[in-house]
Amino acid sequence: MRTATPTHDRYARGRDKLAQVDGSAGEAVVDSLGDLGRHIVEYAFGDVYARPGLSLRNRELAAVAMLAAKGGCEPQLDVHLHAARNVGLTVEELREVLIQVAPYAGFPAAINAMRRLQALEAEEAAL
Amino acid sequence: MRTATPTHDRYARGRDKLAQVDGSAGEAVVDSLGDLGRHIVEYAFGDVYARPGLSLRNRELAAVAMLAAKGGCEPQLDVHLHAARNVGLTVEELREVLIQVAPYAGFPAAINAMRRLQALEAEEAAL
Amino acid sequence: MRTATPTHDRYARGRDKLAQVDGSAGEAVVDSLGDLGRHIVEYAFGDVYARPGLSLRNRELAAVAMLAAKGGCEPQLDVHLHAARNVGLTVEELREVLIQVAPYAGFPAAINAMRRLQALEAEEAAL
Amino acid sequence: MRTATPTHDRYARGRDKLAQVDGSAGEAVVDSLGDLGRHIVEYAFGDVYARPGLSLRNRELAAVAMLAAKGGCEPQLDVHLHAARNVGLTVEELREVLIQVAPYAGFPAAINAMRRLQALEAEEAAL
Amino acid sequence: MRTATPTHDRYARGRDKLAQVDGSAGEAVVDSLGDLGRHIVEYAFGDVYARPGLSLRNRELAAVAMLAAKGGCEPQLDVHLHAARNVGLTVEELREVLIQVAPYAGFPAAINAMRRLQALEAEEAAL
Amino acid sequence: MRTATPTHDRYARGRDKLAQVDGSAGEAVVDSLGDLGRHIVEYAFGDVYARPGLSLRNRELAAVAMLAAKGGCEPQLDVHLHAARNVGLTVEELREVLIQVAPYAGFPAAINAMRRLQALEAEEAAL
Repeated sequence: MRTATPTHDRYARGRDKLAQVDGSAGEAVVDSLGDLGRHIVEYAFGDVYARPGLSLRNRELAAVAMLAAKGGCEPQLDVHLHAARNVGLTVEELREVLIQVAPYAGFPAAINAMRRLQALEAEEAAL
Repeated sequence: MRTATPTHDRYARGRDKLAQVDGSAGEAVVDSLGDLGRHIVEYAFGDVYARPGLSLRNRELAAVAMLAAKGGCEPQLDVHLHAARNVGLTVEELREVLIQVAPYAGFPAAINAMRRLQALEAEEAAL
Repeated sequence: MRTATPTHDRYARGRDKLAQVDGSAGEAVVDSLGDLGRHIVEYAFGDVYARPGLSLRNRELAAVAMLAAKGGCEPQLDVHLHAARNVGLTVEELREVLIQVAPYAGFPAAINAMRRLQALEAEEAAL
Repeated sequence: MRTATPTHDRYARGRDKLAQVDGSAGEAVVDSLGDLGRHIVEYAFGDVYARPGLSLRNRELAAVAMLAAKGGCEPQLDVHLHAARNVGLTVEELREVLIQVAPYAGFPAAINAMRRLQALEAEEAAL
Repeated sequence: MRTATPTHDRYARGRDKLAQVDGSAGEAVVDSLGDLGRHIVEYAFGDVYARPGLSLRNRELAAVAMLAAKGGCEPQLDVHLHAARNVGLTVEELREVLIQVAPYAGFPAAINAMRRLQALEAEEAAL
Repeated sequence: MRTATPTHDRYARGRDKLAQVDGSAGEAVVDSLGDLGRHIVEYAFGDVYARPGLSLRNRELAAVAMLAAKGGCEPQLDVHLHAARNVGLTVEELREVLIQVAPYAGFPAAINAMRRLQALEAEEAAL
């Protein structure tokens, strides 16, 4: 039997998960998006990211691969490359993921994503 | 101040909305999809479709246009062409929407979607 | 029997429809595009938008949904968000359409489109 | 000064061009599509394919490449692989085009299109 | 200084990696694709998959996520869901990846991919 | 029998082909991309572009069509519009290709690509 999810704390749970994964950059994004931002907090982070069956490290690896393969998601790729670093992926691992985007989605998608990783590297080097 | 959405009845609300929009075809889809199906009920129908700011007729018109323009979503297009009919769009209006897909997404996307509308018409004629 | 469309006034009809829908922004776009612009006037506006079976309001609602769901069409989204306002859609209705883009095409597509609607709102507020 | 295209014979011109490029397979497709089919005849064939600046051979080479790279357009790819053969491209040239799809759009798109070319080869071998 | 990769054994290395990852299903695919299949062996498996910086488990997790998010890649998704199982991902982990496809690429892409995972589960249950 | 490609000179061959097709702009791109750039040289140019079965002119015509139809590849479109000019395509022929993008992939894709061709024309006029 299917029952309703107990979700009275869904926004709070999503907000915690968002802070853990994306940090202040992610929070700034959702806070500027009204109800769309609330759906990101509640559903994407509260319902999906908070699930126990996959590590945050694996979730961000998948997120970066998907955003790079789809193309046209550069602002989201920037947020999730940072998130990937927050949850423990190295720059070298992220580079490998983007190198692997090419056989699945072509070199243009891989190149455009690699430029965002290079920007992240430059930013980290400047700290 | 942003507060958590009162969502203890989110699954029930989504379930009602799904029944209203997609009928038994939509219910069969979500029931066969486990937690992914539950997210469709709670988020897509309970959070999004249940919002008051746009009629179900306009929501389905947008859904059909998006699914046709994206391509590769034929099973979902079948569900939403039926849904569109349920909430009051005519076959003629749906044909107009698909004719308008072509200038935005090209003839292949429009043709593939029109084939699904033709299948729906044949099905309705056989009743 | 299929006969040729009487189209001696197709360019003029498309031009009228374009002016009605997109205003001067749309006219500037097509005038800068040579024969591609002429095809937009004659086919997209003269042949498709001029058809009677769907209101301009519904046509622009579908156009905004498709452009947002496809992604990478930000210049066209700007033109059609303005067009949508011209033919009677409210900012609130457009926000609902973009909130509904997420379950069909993902949050990145919805976010990128919402940024363009926010830019339009800022522009309208500054008038 | 921009003037209206003389288009009273646009349907006839598109119909001739369609017959020349796609043969009876293309004619069957457009005849089954109502006004969407008429737009394909008048705009895609009457306005675009009938233009003198690019050979039909080059137009079909571009069409096959685009359809393969986009994905999800298998019915249209079948029509245009046949069309490409009609206007003089060899199976070897088409195979080269599809091999080149991979670096731009990934192996999945290239493989799915290569399957359609293999089906065409089998069909030609059976004649 | 950049030097040429020693690649005289590239085909053999790719072939070993392909056998390790995709098993006989992958080998059947590349053997049926001529030079396109050879490129898959040499470049995708010999050059990319054989790189040390990311585990095969992570590579397949990324592959499944990308194929699901792109859509229209069902045959490739079948191969890589099997490959993912071969290199140690559980059905539960794959289900989590597909549940996470929805917030990035929408429910239609997630549903279509989940159907392929369900087919794999049925196949495994029948063994 | 399938044998390994003799590839000890694959990087050099790809490098020559890249210089011939894309000139210094292409070389700057691959040199800034690390191993991803090496894969572009070795596989895309050494393995694919160096094949004899299709002229460079036809390869660039297909590349421009694919990049335009996919969308979101503006940096790559700039490189390949220049490459297309290098291998003998005229601005008029490229304009025809982009006009033909519209019926296959919609006007937004065609318009965004035409803007890049217009930028190339302005650049050539300024020389």
